[in-house]
Amino acid sequence: MKLLVCLFGLFASFAQGYDYQTFWFETKIDHFSFARNDSFKMRVLYSDKYFDSSEPGPVFFYTGNEGDIETFTNNTGLMWDWAADFKALLIFAEHRFYGKSMPFGDKSYDTYKQYGYLTAEQALADFADLIQHVKNNWPVKKVVAFGGSYGGMLSAWMRIKYPWLIDAAIAASAPILQFQDVTACGVFDKIVTKAFAKASERCADNIRRSWIALEKLGKDGENGSALIRENFRICQNVLPSNYTAVRDWLHDTYGNLAMINYPYGTNFLKKVPGHPVQVSCSFLDKDFHCDAELLKGVYQAINVFHNFSGDTQCNDVGNSGGDNISDAGWNIQTCNEMVMPFCGDGQEDMFYPYSWNFTQFRKDCEKKYGMTPDLNIARRMFGGRDISAASNIVFSNGDLDPWCGGGVLKQLNPTLPVVIIEGGAHHYDLRSASPLDTPAVISARNVEKEYIKLWIGAS
Amino acid sequence: MKLLVCLFGLFASFAQGYDYQTFWFETKIDHFSFARNDSFKMRVLYSDKYFDSSEPGPVFFYTGNEGDIETFTNNTGLMWDWAADFKALLIFAEHRFYGKSMPFGDKSYDTYKQYGYLTAEQALADFADLIQHVKNNWPVKKVVAFGGSYGGMLSAWMRIKYPWLIDAAIAASAPILQFQDVTACGVFDKIVTKAFAKASERCADNIRRSWIALEKLGKDGENGSALIRENFRICQNVLPSNYTAVRDWLHDTYGNLAMINYPYGTNFLKKVPGHPVQVSCSFLDKDFHCDAELLKGVYQAINVFHNFSGDTQCNDVGNSGGDNISDAGWNIQTCNEMVMPFCGDGQEDMFYPYSWNFTQFRKDCEKKYGMTPDLNIARRMFGGRDISAASNIVFSNGDLDPWCGGGVLKQLNPTLPVVIIEGGAHHYDLRSASPLDTPAVISARNVEKEYIKLWIGAS
Repeated sequence: MKLLVCLFGLFASFAQGYDYQTFWFETKIDHFSFARNDSFKMRVLYSDKYFDSSEPGPVFFYTGNEGDIETFTNNTGLMWDWAADFKALLIFAEHRFYGKSMPFGDKSYDTYKQYGYLTAEQALADFADLIQHVKNNWPVKKVVAFGGSYGGMLSAWMRIKYPWLIDAAIAASAPILQFQDVTACGVFDKIVTKAFAKASERCADNIRRSWIALEKLGKDGENGSALIRENFRICQNVLPSNYTAVRDWLHDTYGNLAMINYPYGTNFLKKVPGHPVQVSCSFLDKDFHCDAELLKGVYQAINVFHNFSGDTQCNDVGNSGGDNISDAGWNIQTCNEMVMPFCGDGQEDMFYPYSWNFTQFRKDCEKKYGMTPDLNIARRMFGGRDISAASNIVFSNGDLDPWCGGGVLKQLNPTLPVVIIEGGAHHYDLRSASPLDTPAVISARNVEKEYIKLWIGAS
Repeated sequence: MKLLVCLFGLFASFAQGYDYQTFWFETKIDHFSFARNDSFKMRVLYSDKYFDSSEPGPVFFYTGNEGDIETFTNNTGLMWDWAADFKALLIFAEHRFYGKSMPFGDKSYDTYKQYGYLTAEQALADFADLIQHVKNNWPVKKVVAFGGSYGGMLSAWMRIKYPWLIDAAIAASAPILQFQDVTACGVFDKIVTKAFAKASERCADNIRRSWIALEKLGKDGENGSALIRENFRICQNVLPSNYTAVRDWLHDTYGNLAMINYPYGTNFLKKVPGHPVQVSCSFLDKDFHCDAELLKGVYQAINVFHNFSGDTQCNDVGNSGGDNISDAGWNIQTCNEMVMPFCGDGQEDMFYPYSWNFTQFRKDCEKKYGMTPDLNIARRMFGGRDISAASNIVFSNGDLDPWCGGGVLKQLNPTLPVVIIEGGAHHYDLRSASPLDTPAVISARNVEKEYIKLWIGAS
């Protein structure tokens, strides 16, 4: 489960080489109390290439999520694509405790006395402070927030909590409902299954069968687990006692493939082809006559993610998402506010039964981080499903993105439009335009653009 | 200036002897970070006398302000008056660091490490946590926030920041605009002047003249300052070097008289009659032939506030608002978030020129409390004037309440109605109905009631 969550913010790092500058913005470590007076410097990337002071357009403000802001800057092509048309000032704000925005420098991840300040509320308040600064220093009036995944949650929440600073928001693939008592825990795996079954029903069925084959081997003593290791070229030793780590790594890999199932290749640390789910399923779209063949097929299928480049020596089961993903911060956030329950039953999804156990989860968080997660915080602070008093937010989701199950899929009022991208993966719409784009994403971006123009009064 | 602000939350303590119960609600000391895990118990008063579980009405939720919650419970008669009609569950939540809701017990006011958690955001989050708890434990759906003065600011801000928890709010005499760069600093004194001039132009003119008389004496060596002491029956020694303390105390007293200028007597620690401004002005509505007579008249005028009961032995210039007012908490809040600038010019107001000096103010706060006030926080966190995205808040103000200058007097959208109570003093509408009520306040309450019914779908 951990790895799934880590990969939540996985962004294509297909660097576009956009041209931007950097500044460092000093802001408070604690925005809500005065028990400490210290501050830190957050990193802000910006481009005023398209901005014209004599005829100022809006600020396009990327609400940075759990990673280095350069990745988001280079992978949110939509903002760059629209900038000229809007004469926009582009701002990409790095989220505290990620990238180079470390409130306590090298000690930021030492104890909860430091990383306890890694919360969404504090990050939003950083952004609010920054926006006030930008408004004081540039002749801008309107601000549009953009964000994908957790960044999309932050975009929506910025508009919900600070509507005087943010006029409109595009919350792409933002699972603001992926919380306990808000969304059923099994929805994520069901959508992964749907994405694979759409490529091939037989593929999904084979994946569902593969767990039994794997379990047989896993429980078949050291010989069996050695075969698992060999089959999947696992770096680590595999023993009967830990073979489920391989299982969970496979599980998470399918989720990652579904998230980045774009119609063109992207270049994460591990390169993937276009339509990676279809490519993956091509190895499982047949009848297998024995378990060994089936597991060989599974190996080929997940290799589309882990070894498409062909240069992976062995597979690290501790990493289902590529070497560039730093999960230290996000794991902490899941242990304080971002408690997102996941589960599966192996029937409505193509996986195996596992349950969500908050008691155990809490214990683990307390032991590992010294923090007690708050199950209710997303609903209390940000409203859960009850956001109908909000306005001017586009909620966009790809219907085959596993995270869409926790997204806003029902329009709550005329100023909270919902955009569903048929066949779309994770925040596909935020990516730059491509000749390989589907009509669905082109249409989605057009709709989004019209709403933004309407809400900021642009022609 | 300090005293004016202290008195901001001064509530009539004319105890009605309402019947309520108490419970203690445990909530986090810090709601926005996880660098500490401790909690405290806040005091909550409630009455379910009018509540019917089989046909549940709304929660009427008083957002407690800077003082003991019992005072607000007993002086917000409007909630009690309406309770039967709405079948409402009444809840009065005590603000952290006031009354008996001390996050660090006896040490709560020790250093900024403790009282740094005395902020509006934390208090609102306490209320949010409590409302979630109430909703989980009572069959209620709708919640209406009520508050006066700073409590009215909190009511409005609850709806602005937590619209999923609060369906509607009455923000009575809530000066959410009384901040630098939002409202001119001289407006308070101008309205005090207007209230006195309405009683008698000559009275206001005499007060304006009295400062010159006072200054003459104050600068006339020890003899003059001894005469000041004698004239005003000051407890403390008065010297040429500190005679301005008497001046400021007089100034603040006029402000207090204007705030509580109700048509009936109220019983603060110092009892006042009905229409206290008019009574006060009756002593100054004539031509004085010399300074001594004028100052004697001033003495009689302010005695309406300080010695209407006749049992005050001497006047404490350190206290312009009555003995029951604990200003420790509010003084801290003015030094972190509630930076409210005041000034006067002695021309458009009946006082003497004094300016607002933030640099000095900040220095004093840093020295006294170890906190650096944040001038922008009210605008950043709560929107300043830019709250047109909000909804379902009644902003009511008495036009002769000195605080109305910092109130919302212009309707920003159809769901943010503005109610002006002609001739009304500070949060007059929140008080219980009285046979002496003005038609203006009766009409205001009726309008407020209709809005609340509309917004919570009550018949």
